[in-house]
Amino acid sequence: MEIERKFLVLDPPELDGAESDEIEQGYLATGADGEVRLRRKGEHLVLTAKRGSGISRDEAEVDLDRGVFERLWPLTGGRRLRKRRHVIPLGGLKIELDVYEGDLEGLVVAEIEFDSVDEAQAFEPPAWLGVEVTGDERYLNETLATRGRPS
Amino acid sequence: MEIERKFLVLDPPELDGAESDEIEQGYLATGADGEVRLRRKGEHLVLTAKRGSGISRDEAEVDLDRGVFERLWPLTGGRRLRKRRHVIPLGGLKIELDVYEGDLEGLVVAEIEFDSVDEAQAFEPPAWLGVEVTGDERYLNETLATRGRPS
Repeated sequence: MEIERKFLVLDPPELDGAESDEIEQGYLATGADGEVRLRRKGEHLVLTAKRGSGISRDEAEVDLDRGVFERLWPLTGGRRLRKRRHVIPLGGLKIELDVYEGDLEGLVVAEIEFDSVDEAQAFEPPAWLGVEVTGDERYLNETLATRGRPS
Repeated sequence: MEIERKFLVLDPPELDGAESDEIEQGYLATGADGEVRLRRKGEHLVLTAKRGSGISRDEAEVDLDRGVFERLWPLTGGRRLRKRRHVIPLGGLKIELDVYEGDLEGLVVAEIEFDSVDEAQAFEPPAWLGVEVTGDERYLNETLATRGRPS
């Protein structure tokens, strides 16, 4: 189970030096009964299936070859998003800073993953992290891809 | 777009000579917004994604290698079915006769695909085809896999 906190970012730090990847993802299916996602991260093509929610969430991730990916991708139409993910070290932690593009341009979200609930609760966010949106369904990638940015 | 009619079968014809395949399938996701199915037919492993319904239904089918299939299969738990599919020639048509197994044992369903709506309407079912269930959602494989046999 992943333990993470998520924050909106209005004023990101300097990102020139940070490692980053262009990510494009689309959903073959969404919803509580099963989510199936295609993701292209550079040349890396992945299908991820998720089931359930919260503690009982199951997940499997498999690499796809280009031909398979390209035959499935058209079925994600209208349920896609693009973002550039920057990885920013912070103490012993890593902040993943997703700068959304296209229809979601202007949205910047930071995610930090923790090893334990204690560590997550003890975390003191640096000043540039804005409103916390941990657990806010409007900021799930699945929601952003299907419904767009919350107004 | 597929044009087909579907019938329940109480008393199937002699099947000894008919070509047949064991089929096992499970769903990673179900529902109107996207269905993603895994199917094993002999050694042939396939993922099928569907989107929409009726006339606007889109579909893509890709072969999976064994490793990928086996990592995804556990996520179909509780949404699976098994059946033996017999292909029975009838005039210029082919009847696919699905004899369900496991929890669905006793259920036998025949499907006939046509080239046109006219041909489908003109079709006169042989006596061994029972109640027509074309368009009956209770007899979709997706429904049978998740809710079981209609009572």
